[in-house]
Amino acid sequence: MRRMPLGQVYQLLEPGPVTLLTTARKGRANVMTMSWHMMLEFEPPLIACVVSGNNFSFEALRATGECVIALPARKLAAKAVKVGNCSGRDVDKFAAFGLTPVEASQVKPPLIAECFANLECVVVDRRMVNRYNMFILEAVAAWSDPKQKNPKAFHHQGYGKFVADGPAFTLKSAKA
Amino acid sequence: MRRMPLGQVYQLLEPGPVTLLTTARKGRANVMTMSWHMMLEFEPPLIACVVSGNNFSFEALRATGECVIALPARKLAAKAVKVGNCSGRDVDKFAAFGLTPVEASQVKPPLIAECFANLECVVVDRRMVNRYNMFILEAVAAWSDPKQKNPKAFHHQGYGKFVADGPAFTLKSAKA
Repeated sequence: MRRMPLGQVYQLLEPGPVTLLTTARKGRANVMTMSWHMMLEFEPPLIACVVSGNNFSFEALRATGECVIALPARKLAAKAVKVGNCSGRDVDKFAAFGLTPVEASQVKPPLIAECFANLECVVVDRRMVNRYNMFILEAVAAWSDPKQKNPKAFHHQGYGKFVADGPAFTLKSAKA
Repeated sequence: MRRMPLGQVYQLLEPGPVTLLTTARKGRANVMTMSWHMMLEFEPPLIACVVSGNNFSFEALRATGECVIALPARKLAAKAVKVGNCSGRDVDKFAAFGLTPVEASQVKPPLIAECFANLECVVVDRRMVNRYNMFILEAVAAWSDPKQKNPKAFHHQGYGKFVADGPAFTLKSAKA
């Protein structure tokens, strides 16, 4: 993994990819699938995300205030969906789905080796947790895998329907 | 435009498309480009979005509490970027870019005829506006254009780089 400038984090999340969220609590790592996230600020990167109170990850995130947002490419889509279809209450998902935890630099939850980017995050605002299950995160370190060239992210359209990133194009933009 | 069930709104926004946001104030409609949004709840659909205080739309949204989120397909990408590169302070963007305002059913801001879907929204929570420029919206009516079959949304990766929706695929998902 290669360290990424924090100012580039929004370029990963703004397009709305399916992500994997790792947490760690009581010495045990877990991972869930997450599509409800958005950027709040460029740098330092602030990210809002929703983690349902029904998810096993919710209590871990609330209690520890740490997570990693990992970005899977298209080839990991089947695994990402399986991750989302079971609970860490019952399964060691890293072992079950062949995902490799890698030690992070500033938080306890692991990076995921197979993902093309990983964002180490800390919770910086909990005021919207009770009402909306919304956490405000700051990305404190970001990593990309230089071996994955032009990774295609993918996007959830509900009920198991997805689209992968398609043709790229550039238009002159005055803004970030 | 055909009315959409509100429970399907998340299927439009969860994939992270570039959207257009219309507002209306003092008898004048405006439109901006917006990518910082996420779902908060399925039904009634709650949506969080960030509108920078620098945008002319910010004051209109704050003052009126109403907006429309419109979804442009790939063929509108060049117009959407132009919309984002200028301000309603200076330009009547509907006229300048050939976008057709259509009366909405429950809010004053217009739908956009050329977009494949339009969501009429009202602001339901302003507590995060001062700190993050974040508005919590409820979609109160949703419309799709039955003439646009399988529209391809597009996603912003920063600095004028975009990807259009690519290949669709389905994976068995236990959840919405």
